[in-house]
Amino acid sequence: MADEVLFEFLHMEMVSHVYKEQQSNKGEMDNKVAICISILEGMGFRVGQGLIERLTKDSPSFKDELDIMKFICKDFWTYVFRRQVDNLRTNHQGTYVLQDNKFTLLTQLSSGKQYLDEAPKYLAYSCGVVRGALSNLGLDSVVTAEVSLMPSCKFQVVIQKL
Amino acid sequence: MADEVLFEFLHMEMVSHVYKEQQSNKGEMDNKVAICISILEGMGFRVGQGLIERLTKDSPSFKDELDIMKFICKDFWTYVFRRQVDNLRTNHQGTYVLQDNKFTLLTQLSSGKQYLDEAPKYLAYSCGVVRGALSNLGLDSVVTAEVSLMPSCKFQVVIQKL
Repeated sequence: MADEVLFEFLHMEMVSHVYKEQQSNKGEMDNKVAICISILEGMGFRVGQGLIERLTKDSPSFKDELDIMKFICKDFWTYVFRRQVDNLRTNHQGTYVLQDNKFTLLTQLSSGKQYLDEAPKYLAYSCGVVRGALSNLGLDSVVTAEVSLMPSCKFQVVIQKL
Repeated sequence: MADEVLFEFLHMEMVSHVYKEQQSNKGEMDNKVAICISILEGMGFRVGQGLIERLTKDSPSFKDELDIMKFICKDFWTYVFRRQVDNLRTNHQGTYVLQDNKFTLLTQLSSGKQYLDEAPKYLAYSCGVVRGALSNLGLDSVVTAEVSLMPSCKFQVVIQKL
């Protein structure tokens, strides 16, 4: 209980710090938001790399891409976000949609549509965490998140083929 | 286990982000370090305020200042840093020294004297957490930390009398 609160509070502070810091810089509004998202995503990326290394150090290797995605949805999600992904969909061509109906980092915000505009900044770090984990498992990807009703959230993972 | 790693990794990223960001600003080196410390301390302060509110919501009220400090050393320390303070000293005039022989946020760094110069930046956030907690318990304080041999650490709390 303590640790999760510790993490959640620090996460909130970090988001607000990154945004405040950018506000004091000159530049266009849209550009600033993009910079903030990118900073948070980058932090998440490095954390995701570290986490997956610890988590898989005694695991057998994975069969294929789908096997990796299943691991992300079950073990990794439980390890990081304390619940499993509720639904995983794929087009079998490298695009995956992970639906979490009660995403941890959104549960502190009011449910419903009121703060929908605020959601993206609380998801950037998590997108990075997922991308970092996949990256250390050998998959380059683009990870984005979409919220239509809090605290439910859809992550889209598009694997980049070389 | 997962949550603590999640927190520790995010903490590391945050420290490195705050330092990197200041490096790109113009200004003197000493001044920059002071700004970084102050940013991290400020984040910790707000987190400490939040944590203590949760932790004490069902607690009876405290008898006196020493009673509060004992609570910080036992319950609060365990809640936040997963162990109790090893030793608490006081001059009975508002100064307290809390010694933690194996401080959580230093255990990831090499033990010994090699990285002693790096320690302060990993302690600023924690000093803030303690100061924030005390503040919400009605005690204004100045909290500093000192390391002479990692991962052991001494926090000095000086209560500010009005």
